Amino acid sequence: MVKLFAYGIRDDEKNALTTWRNQHPEVELAYTDELVMPSTAALANGASAAVVYQQLPYTRETLAALAQNGVKSISLRNVGTDNIDFDAAREFGLQVSNVPVYSPNAIAEHSIIQMSRLLRQTKAMDAKVAKHDLRWAPTIGREVRMQTVGVIGTGHIGRVAIKILQGFGANVIAFDPYPNPELAQSGIYVDRLEELYAQADVISLYVPGVPANYHLIDAAAIAQMKPGVVLVNVSRGNLMDLDAIIAGLNSGQIGDFAMDVYEDEVGLFNEDWSDKPFPDPKIAALIKQENVLVTPHTAFYTTKAVYEMVTQSLDAALMFATGQTPAIAVEY
Amino acid sequence: MVKLFAYGIRDDEKNALTTWRNQHPEVELAYTDELVMPSTAALANGASAAVVYQQLPYTRETLAALAQNGVKSISLRNVGTDNIDFDAAREFGLQVSNVPVYSPNAIAEHSIIQMSRLLRQTKAMDAKVAKHDLRWAPTIGREVRMQTVGVIGTGHIGRVAIKILQGFGANVIAFDPYPNPELAQSGIYVDRLEELYAQADVISLYVPGVPANYHLIDAAAIAQMKPGVVLVNVSRGNLMDLDAIIAGLNSGQIGDFAMDVYEDEVGLFNEDWSDKPFPDPKIAALIKQENVLVTPHTAFYTTKAVYEMVTQSLDAALMFATGQTPAIAVEY
Ligand SMILES: NC(=O)c1ccc[n+]([C@@H]2O[C@H](COP(=O)([O-])OP(=O)(O)OC[C@H]3O[C@@H](n4cnc5c(N)ncnc54)[C@H](O)[C@@H]3O)[C@@H](O)[C@H]2O)c1
Ligand SMILES: NC(=O)c1ccc[n+]([C@@H]2O[C@H](COP(=O)([O-])OP(=O)(O)OC[C@H]3O[C@@H](n4cnc5c(N)ncnc54)[C@H](O)[C@@H]3O)[C@@H](O)[C@H]2O)c1
Repeated sequence: MVKLFAYGIRDDEKNALTTWRNQHPEVELAYTDELVMPSTAALANGASAAVVYQQLPYTRETLAALAQNGVKSISLRNVGTDNIDFDAAREFGLQVSNVPVYSPNAIAEHSIIQMSRLLRQTKAMDAKVAKHDLRWAPTIGREVRMQTVGVIGTGHIGRVAIKILQGFGANVIAFDPYPNPELAQSGIYVDRLEELYAQADVISLYVPGVPANYHLIDAAAIAQMKPGVVLVNVSRGNLMDLDAIIAGLNSGQIGDFAMDVYEDEVGLFNEDWSDKPFPDPKIAALIKQENVLVTPHTAFYTTKAVYEMVTQSLDAALMFATGQTPAIAVEY
Repeated sequence: MVKLFAYGIRDDEKNALTTWRNQHPEVELAYTDELVMPSTAALANGASAAVVYQQLPYTRETLAALAQNGVKSISLRNVGTDNIDFDAAREFGLQVSNVPVYSPNAIAEHSIIQMSRLLRQTKAMDAKVAKHDLRWAPTIGREVRMQTVGVIGTGHIGRVAIKILQGFGANVIAFDPYPNPELAQSGIYVDRLEELYAQADVISLYVPGVPANYHLIDAAAIAQMKPGVVLVNVSRGNLMDLDAIIAGLNSGQIGDFAMDVYEDEVGLFNEDWSDKPFPDPKIAALIKQENVLVTPHTAFYTTKAVYEMVTQSLDAALMFATGQTPAIAVEY
């Protein structure tokens, strides 16, 4: 019988895990909520493939301990592989896979929900309702369909966002140095980012945080946008110069802003600060602002995305364990 | 020169009013923020057509005073005409118009934004962020595209909601005793409401609050729905038995609920209760619940809707004033 072992299983992953297990009676699948490290490697003993997800580094010591226990592959339930010591993995003959695409819709939907909430002034309205002020005025909404929305980046996630926006009836324009052929036929691309800045009432980013895109949205870019522009960033924190964004919010050049990512988010997001001093006054101020929505990198966090992360990584682990190479194997 | 006079103009209506005035240099348009009543009727003196919007009744005395000042028509900026004394209007030869369709999108968008917020658990996540708890788990979202959404009523607003939902990629099913021929071709209609209840993860209403639909959603209907169903009502308060809804929320049969309308909303909504005792404990409790979103009949309240209400009523008033009959004249 094939044996797999999964580390770091959270409560919200258990449904998907159980579903997969029921579909694979030929596999013995055990798991723990503990992360993988030298002291927990023996838990995997007897399993030839491990399934993992953690911020904690996969060090030489950890990988050696896994190999000693007979593990021949690790299948990540997430995208990022930065925390793997690949030299050690090579030395111990460990194969690796990740889940590069789990649910573009999770992120695209979040971006449009936050955008539409900003347009609708829901934060102001919710606050009024909470304190029993049930007057409409002056908390008036703007309709998504009346906006020209500029989409920067038309990859997996940007393309889903465009479909959602078109369902609302918005006028969508887009920029990507590598236009999608099908989308290009519908004529939504502008040739230069400056044109998008000049025309868009709302701008949302779907581009990678590569060095070439560092502070793509800076003071100079913001100055080219329409006064009162609505900005949304669910992609990467380093795409925006947050000080320039804050200056734009203060001057009114930026009307509303939604952020799911932050350049200095590591160590800040996914932590509970409710009972200790919050270390980032900039983010604390933004959280309080009525025309700003902050979420702590939760755009990906849906039941469907988690289901895909769990089941795709288990599928890959099973292929490794039976001598096959999954399509999502990482070459290194 | 044609003279028109507008009553009860709110701040958020002034943009639309100014736009219309600039487009009609041939018309002299004056206005006030006061409502029309016997004591203010003289303000309209010299204008043959009045434009109005108020909850306050248009009584025989008010209509008589308007007629004495030379007013020959009143053009409502809203739909409802219940507060007009039509016998008096007939006696004084006053013509009447209303604005039956201003922006179905305003209401449809609001319903889908609230629905997607419930699915995403944004109220819980926002509360966590506000108190600096930036952990994702267990506040996981569900994707709109993964839902079977049951749309009850496929008139002006329901049809727009369907387009938005299909943009998200949701599986939409619908029920209407008078199916729309075009929609019917796409095969989204079920034959009986019971089928919709059995299949839908999310149910949203877009039907009129006529007596035949009184408490359409009652305990018996709720019992036929899927456990954990998400309910949205932006149509009319009397469509739902709120006590049955509350019981369903308490038992878990209803997972989440968004309401923009309430059977007893008159005198409660569009009032500021923040500095006085809130008179409705049921609504106070719902406002506090993390899986419930309450808005005080604001679905219609967008810049586009207000623009349409102001400009359509002014167009109608101008037609009355120049001896024509607008398409939106009310026959009585
Ligand atoms: N918030 C979250 O939870 C979350 C989760 C997953 C991914 N993301 C982020 O979402 C973003 C988009 O991901 P994706 O899967 O769609 O990527 P993708 O690789 O499929 O598409 C990216 C697109 O951006 C284009 N692009 C690159 N630089 C550009 C520029 N300067 N201007 C315009 N277009 C440019 C590329 O040509 C490509 O078409 C990434 O930054 C990713 O890290 C966020
Ligand atoms: N919240 C707000 O601000 C706001 C603003 C405007 C309108 N509304 C409400 O929105 C609702 C929809 O308005 P509309 O303009 O789309 O109306 P509409 O008349 O265009 O369409 C209503 C549809 O409902 C169908 N219907 C009637 N009874 C039904 C039943 N029992 N089951 C299924 N279908 C049924 C009718 O056949 C019709 O197709 C109305 O209740 C209206 O009062 C709310």
